[in-house]
Amino acid sequence: GAVWVRGPKRCTVLMQTFVLCVCSPGFQDVHVMIFVGFGFLMTFLQRYGFSSVGFNFLIAAFSLQWATLMQGFFHGFHGGKIHIGVESMINADFCTGAVLISFGAVLGKTSPVQLLVMAMFEVTLFSINEYILLSLLGARDAGGSMTIHTFGAYFGLVVTRVLYRPNLDKSQKRNSSVYHSDLFAMIGTLFLWMFWPSFNSAVTAHGDDQHRTAMNTYYSLASCTLATFGMSALTAHDGKLDMVHIQNAALAGGVAIGTAGEMMLTPFGSMIVGFLAGIISVLGFKYLSPFLESKLKIQDTCGVHNLHGMPGILGAIVGAVTAAAATTEIYGGGMKDVFPDVASQARDSFKQGGLQAISLVVTLGMALGGGLIVGFILKLPIYGSPSDTICYEDSIYWEVGSPYQRDADNVF
Amino acid sequence: GAVWVRGPKRCTVLMQTFVLCVCSPGFQDVHVMIFVGFGFLMTFLQRYGFSSVGFNFLIAAFSLQWATLMQGFFHGFHGGKIHIGVESMINADFCTGAVLISFGAVLGKTSPVQLLVMAMFEVTLFSINEYILLSLLGARDAGGSMTIHTFGAYFGLVVTRVLYRPNLDKSQKRNSSVYHSDLFAMIGTLFLWMFWPSFNSAVTAHGDDQHRTAMNTYYSLASCTLATFGMSALTAHDGKLDMVHIQNAALAGGVAIGTAGEMMLTPFGSMIVGFLAGIISVLGFKYLSPFLESKLKIQDTCGVHNLHGMPGILGAIVGAVTAAAATTEIYGGGMKDVFPDVASQARDSFKQGGLQAISLVVTLGMALGGGLIVGFILKLPIYGSPSDTICYEDSIYWEVGSPYQRDADNVF
Amino acid sequence: GAVWVRGPKRCTVLMQTFVLCVCSPGFQDVHVMIFVGFGFLMTFLQRYGFSSVGFNFLIAAFSLQWATLMQGFFHGFHGGKIHIGVESMINADFCTGAVLISFGAVLGKTSPVQLLVMAMFEVTLFSINEYILLSLLGARDAGGSMTIHTFGAYFGLVVTRVLYRPNLDKSQKRNSSVYHSDLFAMIGTLFLWMFWPSFNSAVTAHGDDQHRTAMNTYYSLASCTLATFGMSALTAHDGKLDMVHIQNAALAGGVAIGTAGEMMLTPFGSMIVGFLAGIISVLGFKYLSPFLESKLKIQDTCGVHNLHGMPGILGAIVGAVTAAAATTEIYGGGMKDVFPDVASQARDSFKQGGLQAISLVVTLGMALGGGLIVGFILKLPIYGSPSDTICYEDSIYWEVGSPYQRDADNVF
Repeated sequence: GAVWVRGPKRCTVLMQTFVLCVCSPGFQDVHVMIFVGFGFLMTFLQRYGFSSVGFNFLIAAFSLQWATLMQGFFHGFHGGKIHIGVESMINADFCTGAVLISFGAVLGKTSPVQLLVMAMFEVTLFSINEYILLSLLGARDAGGSMTIHTFGAYFGLVVTRVLYRPNLDKSQKRNSSVYHSDLFAMIGTLFLWMFWPSFNSAVTAHGDDQHRTAMNTYYSLASCTLATFGMSALTAHDGKLDMVHIQNAALAGGVAIGTAGEMMLTPFGSMIVGFLAGIISVLGFKYLSPFLESKLKIQDTCGVHNLHGMPGILGAIVGAVTAAAATTEIYGGGMKDVFPDVASQARDSFKQGGLQAISLVVTLGMALGGGLIVGFILKLPIYGSPSDTICYEDSIYWEVGSPYQRDADNVF
Repeated sequence: GAVWVRGPKRCTVLMQTFVLCVCSPGFQDVHVMIFVGFGFLMTFLQRYGFSSVGFNFLIAAFSLQWATLMQGFFHGFHGGKIHIGVESMINADFCTGAVLISFGAVLGKTSPVQLLVMAMFEVTLFSINEYILLSLLGARDAGGSMTIHTFGAYFGLVVTRVLYRPNLDKSQKRNSSVYHSDLFAMIGTLFLWMFWPSFNSAVTAHGDDQHRTAMNTYYSLASCTLATFGMSALTAHDGKLDMVHIQNAALAGGVAIGTAGEMMLTPFGSMIVGFLAGIISVLGFKYLSPFLESKLKIQDTCGVHNLHGMPGILGAIVGAVTAAAATTEIYGGGMKDVFPDVASQARDSFKQGGLQAISLVVTLGMALGGGLIVGFILKLPIYGSPSDTICYEDSIYWEVGSPYQRDADNVF
Repeated sequence: GAVWVRGPKRCTVLMQTFVLCVCSPGFQDVHVMIFVGFGFLMTFLQRYGFSSVGFNFLIAAFSLQWATLMQGFFHGFHGGKIHIGVESMINADFCTGAVLISFGAVLGKTSPVQLLVMAMFEVTLFSINEYILLSLLGARDAGGSMTIHTFGAYFGLVVTRVLYRPNLDKSQKRNSSVYHSDLFAMIGTLFLWMFWPSFNSAVTAHGDDQHRTAMNTYYSLASCTLATFGMSALTAHDGKLDMVHIQNAALAGGVAIGTAGEMMLTPFGSMIVGFLAGIISVLGFKYLSPFLESKLKIQDTCGVHNLHGMPGILGAIVGAVTAAAATTEIYGGGMKDVFPDVASQARDSFKQGGLQAISLVVTLGMALGGGLIVGFILKLPIYGSPSDTICYEDSIYWEVGSPYQRDADNVF
C-alpha cells in the first residue's frame, strides 16, 4: 500500500497503508540526531542555549514538513500525489540536517524569522540539488557527504559572508562557552556520534549493504576520535585539549564516510578516512577559521567549515575514487545495490567516479549560488535581526528571568 | 508460550517463553519517555531538580511493578495466573505515565511518602478505568488521550485542589526556573517529542495500523510545535518566547492525537489537530492557569491542565468524531484492527463514536471522584509533607552540600 | 556471509556480507550505555566534567578498536582472519565497559596517557579472562557479572591501591559534586538503567532466551531502585536521600542479574536479587568505602566496589546456584541455549554450577594479579600524572576559560 498527499493546490490526502516500519531504529536514531544531537551541540554558547535548542526545534519542525512537500515533488510524485512513508520521513530529516548545518554558521546573529526564511529557500534548493545528483546524474551519496554536509556548510558560509558584521566584536564576550554549556554540548556530540552509523545507513539497501555502511561509519568515527584527541593536544602550545575540537572534530569521521560508507572501503580504509578527517577538522578549527574570519570576512560561529565543509569535500572525493575503482570482482552480486548503473552496464566504474566528482562541483555551485541569493534576501532590514552589540544573546528573543543566575546563587 | 505470575497470595512464577520482542524499539522508546522524558521535563524548577528526576525515578519504578499486578488482574488473568510479556510492560509504562502526570500537578508540595501512596491508589483506579473503557465499553484509545492524559491530569488537579495551600506564596521565589534548569528540562521535552510516535503506536496492531498511528502523531507534533512558537510570541507583550510554552505546549500535539492516531485521520487532519492543541495549550498557560490558581484554588505546578488536561479532552472528542465517521469504504480490511466491534457488526460507527464520548465522561468522573478521595487521604498529617515556607526545595529531602553553588564559584 | 580482518601483520580486509543487523536495538542501546551512560555518570565531580565525559569518550573509542582485535584473536579467528560483525561490536562494547569501570576507580587521579596504557593492558587481560571463562571452562555469563563487572571493578581497585596517594586530601575540596553536576550524572544513571535489559540480553540466543533475560533484568532493576531509596533514607541520620546512592546503587540490580539473567530465575527471584543488590550497594557506599580508604588505602573515586564489585560477586554466586539447580524439567528445550554443555550431557547441572564458581575465582585472580602488575606499570613517573594538590581538576588537561563560572555570573 501507499499514502498519497495530493499536490499543493488541493491538499486532500488518501490514507492507505504503509509498507516500511515507521518505528525502524534507523528513523528514530536519525530523528534523535536532528533534535537532540544538533540541538544540544549548539548550546555551547554561554548565553544562547535557549535559542540554540529552541530555534533548532522550530526550524527542524518547519523543515520536516516543508521538505516532505518539496522532496515529494522531485522524488515521490505519482499521479498528482505525493507518496509518504518512512523513507520520506528519513529524507525529510536529512534535508533538515542540511538546514541545521547552515544554522550553525549563522548561529547567534539571526532572528527566528530570518532562520525560517532561510529554511524555506534552503529546503527547496536542497531538494533540487539532491534531484540533480541522485536522479539526473545517478550519483551515490547515501550518507550525504555532498547533498547534506557540503551543501549545508557552504550554503551557510556564503549566507554568513553576505551577512558579515564588521562590528561583531562588540558581542565577542558572549561568543564563548562556560563550563556547564560545554557539558550540554557534549550531550549533542555523543548522540550524534553514537547514531551516525544509523544516519549513513538509513536509506541504503537493507541487509549487507546497510551493515557494511554502518560498520564503515563506526570504524571511521572511532579512528577519527583518536586523531582528534591527538591533534588537539599537539596543536596546543601547552598540550591541553580543547573542548571545541572534541565536540566537533570527533564527528568529522562520520561526515567524511558519508558517500563511500556503502562502498567496499574495508574497515582499514574507513579508519584512514576517519583519521584524516579528524586531523583536517582540528587544523581547520585551529588555523583556518581565524583566517577565514579576518581575511575572508566569514564569521562561522560553530565552525561548520571544519566539521561539515572540508570533511564533506573529503568524503565526496573518497566516494569518487572508491566508485572509480569498483569492480564486479570486489562487489559481486552487491554491485546492483551500490552501483545500479554500473551493474546494468549503463556506464562503467570510471564514468561513475567521474559523475561523483561532477556531483561535488554541482553541489558547490548550488550552495555558493544559492547562498549568495538567499544571503541578500536575508539582508533586507525587515526581519528583526539583532544589532551588533546584542548578538549571541537569548534575552532578546526569550523571557529570561533577570538577574537569574545570580539570584539562584543568593538563595542557596 | 507465555509467562505466568500467580496471583497475590502465592507469588510462584512459571517461566516459559515470550512471544513478543522485549527489545522492541516501541518498548524502549516508551521507557525513555517515562524515565528521561518525564524526569527531566520537571527539572525546570531552580531548586527541585534532584526531587524532580529522583522522585520521578522512584514513583516510576514502584508504579511499574504495581501496575503489572493491577493490570494483570483486569486484563491478563488466566487460570489464576498473570500473563506478563512485552505488552504488559508497555501497559505498565502507560499507567506509570498517568501517575507522573499527576505528579506534575503536585510537584514541589508533596513528600515522597505522599507520592507513593498517591501512586498506589492511582494505579488501581487507572486500571479500573482502563478496564471499563477498553474491555467493557469497547472504546479505542491506543495513545491514551483519555486513559492516560485526561485521567492523570484531572486526578492530579483534584488532588492538588484538595491539598490547596493558601500560604504557598511564601515559597514563590523558588517556584521558577534558572537558566540551566530550563536547559535540563529541554532534554525531557525533546525525548518526549521524538519518541511520542512510538508511544501512541506501541500497542496498536502491527503493520499498517502502527505506521499510520506513528505518522499521524509525527505530523500532529510538527504542526503543534509551529503553533506553539507562534502563539508564544503572539501572546507576549514584547513578542518574546516563553520557555514554559516550548517545553510543554509543543508536546500537546502528541496528547491530542492519542485516541484518533490509529484512525484514518489523514496527515492533514493530524496537522489541524496538532495546531489546535498547540494554540489551546499556550492560551491555557497564559490565561487559564493563573485563573485556576486565583479563583479555583488549583495550584498546578507544571501546568498539566494545559499539556495533558485540555489536549486530552480535545483528543477524546476528535477520537469520538473520527470513530463516528468511520466507514468500511475508508478503512477496508483495516476496520477489524481499528474498530473490531464495528467490523464484527456488533455495533455501527455512530454507536462507536457515542461510546467513545461516554468513555470521556466516565474517565472524567473516575478522575474527579478518585482524586477527591485520594486527595483527602493524602491530607492526613502523617506523611511528612513540607511546610508552606519550604516547598519547591530539594534540601529537605536530599543531602545538598551547602552553600554548594556559591562554593563552586569561589573555587573557580 | 562474513567479514574478515586478517591478523596483525598484514591488515588486509576482505569485505563480504554481514549476517546480523548492525542497527539492532541491542547494539545501539549498549553503545548509548557506554558513551552517554558511563560518560555522564562520572560527571558528578564539580570540576572534572570535561575529563569524565571526554576521557570516557577517548578510552572507549580506543578500547573498541583494540578489543575488536584482541577478542578476534581469542574468539573470531578463522583461517588467519578475524570475523567482525554485530556480535564482535557488542563484545567490544562489553570489554570497553570493563575498562570504564576501572576508570571510575582511578577517576581524577590519572592522566589520559595513563588511562590509555591501562586500557591497552586491561583489554588484553579481559580478553584472556573471557576466553578462559566462556571457551575453556564453558561458564555462562551473558550480562557479564563476572567478566565485565567483577573483573573491571577489582582490576581498577588494585590499580588505585597501587597508585595510592597519601596526600590526596589536598584535593579533597574538589572531590565532591555541585548541584548541576549531580543532575548531569543522573543523565548517565537513567540511560544505564533504561537500557540495562538490552545490555544483559544483547548476546543471548534470540527469542525466548533473550526475552527472559531482559525481563529478569527489568524486574531486578525496578526492585533494586526501591531498595536503594529505602536504604538511602534509612542509613541517613536525618532521613535524607543521598544522590550518590540513587545515581549508583539503583543500578546494582542490573549488575547482580548479569549472570543469572538468562536462566530460569523467575520475576520474583529477580526482584529478590535486585533488592539485595540495592541494599548491599548502599551499605557499601555508606560504611565500607570509608573503611577501604582509611584502612586499606583504596581510594575508589566512583565507588565502583559498591556498584560493580560486590554486586558482581553476588551475581556470580546467584548464577552458580541457579545453574546448579537447573533441571531439564524446568528448562525444557531451552536447556541447549542456556546450558549447552548440560544439554549435550557433557556435564551435569551441579558441575556447571561448580564451574561457574571456579570462574568467579579465576576472574578475581586475573583482576587482582593483572591490576597489580598494571598498577606498577602506571606508577612509572613518565605519564604526566597530576600532583596530589591538583587532582579532580579539568584545567590541567583542558582549556578552561578562567574564571569562567564567575565571569558568566557577572555578565548576567
